[in-house]
Amino acid sequence: MTPASQPRTLQTIGEFGLIRELQKHCQTLHSDVIQGIGDDAALLRTSHKEALIASTDLAIEGVHFDLAFESFKDVGHRLAVANISDIAAMGGTPKYLLLALAIPPSYAVSDLRALYQGFKKPCQAHDISLVGGDTSSSKSGLFLCFTILGHVPPKQALTRQSAKVGDKVYVTGTLGDSKAGLQILQRQAKQQTSHADQPYERFLKKRHLRPTPRLAIGQHLSKDRLAHAAIDVSDGLSGDILHLCQASQVGVELWASHLPISRQCQTYTANHCPNPIDFALAGGEDYELLFTIPSRNQGKVSDLSRVLKTKMTCIGEIKPKSFGLRLKLKGGTSRNISRQSYDHFSKKRSKF
Amino acid sequence: MTPASQPRTLQTIGEFGLIRELQKHCQTLHSDVIQGIGDDAALLRTSHKEALIASTDLAIEGVHFDLAFESFKDVGHRLAVANISDIAAMGGTPKYLLLALAIPPSYAVSDLRALYQGFKKPCQAHDISLVGGDTSSSKSGLFLCFTILGHVPPKQALTRQSAKVGDKVYVTGTLGDSKAGLQILQRQAKQQTSHADQPYERFLKKRHLRPTPRLAIGQHLSKDRLAHAAIDVSDGLSGDILHLCQASQVGVELWASHLPISRQCQTYTANHCPNPIDFALAGGEDYELLFTIPSRNQGKVSDLSRVLKTKMTCIGEIKPKSFGLRLKLKGGTSRNISRQSYDHFSKKRSKF
Repeated sequence: MTPASQPRTLQTIGEFGLIRELQKHCQTLHSDVIQGIGDDAALLRTSHKEALIASTDLAIEGVHFDLAFESFKDVGHRLAVANISDIAAMGGTPKYLLLALAIPPSYAVSDLRALYQGFKKPCQAHDISLVGGDTSSSKSGLFLCFTILGHVPPKQALTRQSAKVGDKVYVTGTLGDSKAGLQILQRQAKQQTSHADQPYERFLKKRHLRPTPRLAIGQHLSKDRLAHAAIDVSDGLSGDILHLCQASQVGVELWASHLPISRQCQTYTANHCPNPIDFALAGGEDYELLFTIPSRNQGKVSDLSRVLKTKMTCIGEIKPKSFGLRLKLKGGTSRNISRQSYDHFSKKRSKF
Repeated sequence: MTPASQPRTLQTIGEFGLIRELQKHCQTLHSDVIQGIGDDAALLRTSHKEALIASTDLAIEGVHFDLAFESFKDVGHRLAVANISDIAAMGGTPKYLLLALAIPPSYAVSDLRALYQGFKKPCQAHDISLVGGDTSSSKSGLFLCFTILGHVPPKQALTRQSAKVGDKVYVTGTLGDSKAGLQILQRQAKQQTSHADQPYERFLKKRHLRPTPRLAIGQHLSKDRLAHAAIDVSDGLSGDILHLCQASQVGVELWASHLPISRQCQTYTANHCPNPIDFALAGGEDYELLFTIPSRNQGKVSDLSRVLKTKMTCIGEIKPKSFGLRLKLKGGTSRNISRQSYDHFSKKRSKF
């Protein structure tokens, strides 16, 4: 068989090719679909006052999590937060969870119990009820699929596609902690070291294993109409700003010196990463919110940051599409922002 | 390690043990949850006029489907119908679909396209929009998770738990066709025979690969308030009548001579199954509706059967719980109905 006649595989078309395929085949949409494929979650009108938010997330043993260095409890917690974070990015309130799980029959009941306890904690904290699911045996590791349902008034819903030229770009919390925590966990599992963690290592591991969904912030941004557009940082800043800019048909200038990097992450990167900025750009699964606001709302965002006791940092400005996606470096030079997060067919998932 | 100190596994507690574990850990429910874990789908109040129906279904290569004798198109079609059928069993109208899929990167794009075409057909036929999902690579075969969302007026929703003593038990269509079709497909794949199918084989294979969701029937039963309780036959009659009786706290007498078995399935069982009744009881994935009605509605059900041109057969009667689940045989003897469908940790899924 000549190369030309070989069938195209998913490896050759990549994740965006796959999503384009899906979109091409599924264009018949109800008029009640406010937002279908292409955002953190689907937005579906149920009345003039209310829209349903629905999102589904996969987590596969050996792809999204590794039980060599994560407990079942950690996995449950992290996946629930990933799911809740999609509702946070739309400014909504989560309400119901459905859980499909395929489990090797040899797994211990106590491990499953730990998994439930893991996802139960963030669900209880946000008054989310498990209302259904599906179970199956699995021949190859644990496979989880969470579907979360929430609601938001349709006119208040935040999407990726409404960023305006001149908007300031903000991010909550700090970036790169989760990636640093993951690297520490992976290294420790490989080396089988048992030395006591340094405090910065403990902090970073916890940031990876027990992330916090930014629900209250999303809800305030949406209710008070402070933000134009929002997305959660699941894929990494470089990937998620790209999604937001593509959906909004705009460009962006991010300011390297403004990227919020925790003291602990700085300590880590000082030893393990020649360029902490690249690390902050590429680090996924922080579940922080990335949002754009008109300049006039900057004071209100500062107030909100104080009230909610959560850091919110202005990291750049939305530019016309022709500007592209650029990172302004110290000294006034700049470079293109390239997506540094993994391709979806190597390691990571991709929402559509 | 002594046997007593060995950890309990899912194999030892089985599917119902797992579901009990889930229920135990997830009892905090919103007041808007009309039906949570324990029916074909969750029923969630969105207003006094409308309830949301949500259901999630897994399909795993090597567990729920086998690409040795099913095409990608078949798999897509069958899973979509399984999902739609959960909405039919509640008397609802399906509206939206979310699809999570994990795919080995080496799979051909054309195969994925066939999968989409497979699920697109029943979705288009019932005006269901794909509104979102999640994609990932998989290290071990195709893994699909469909979530379907629909709606129904809350007071009209059919559940498993409202069967009343004295109700007549009905089933749509015929039973066991899908199981017979599956066995033919499996045998042909094993023998690698290429002889032309007999007409009865073609019929039975199609019943397995391209089932029909009984949406219109469910909607009529619900809208016209004809039925007390309903469930779809996904697990097999013996398993599904057990679910219905347990949920309704009743017993049942089924009449062996009344079980609807197609001429084609009779031809098949004449050669391959010593007892066609057992075959009809155990055969899963027919996606027919099993429902109970007060006797006074029998005439209306006959009318509905004529209008919708779909066979609906009275196969028994609801009895008090103390009666148990019994099958009345020819000659007036009877025997207990035992669940003959697979255990969930060997081959099949189980909804919760």
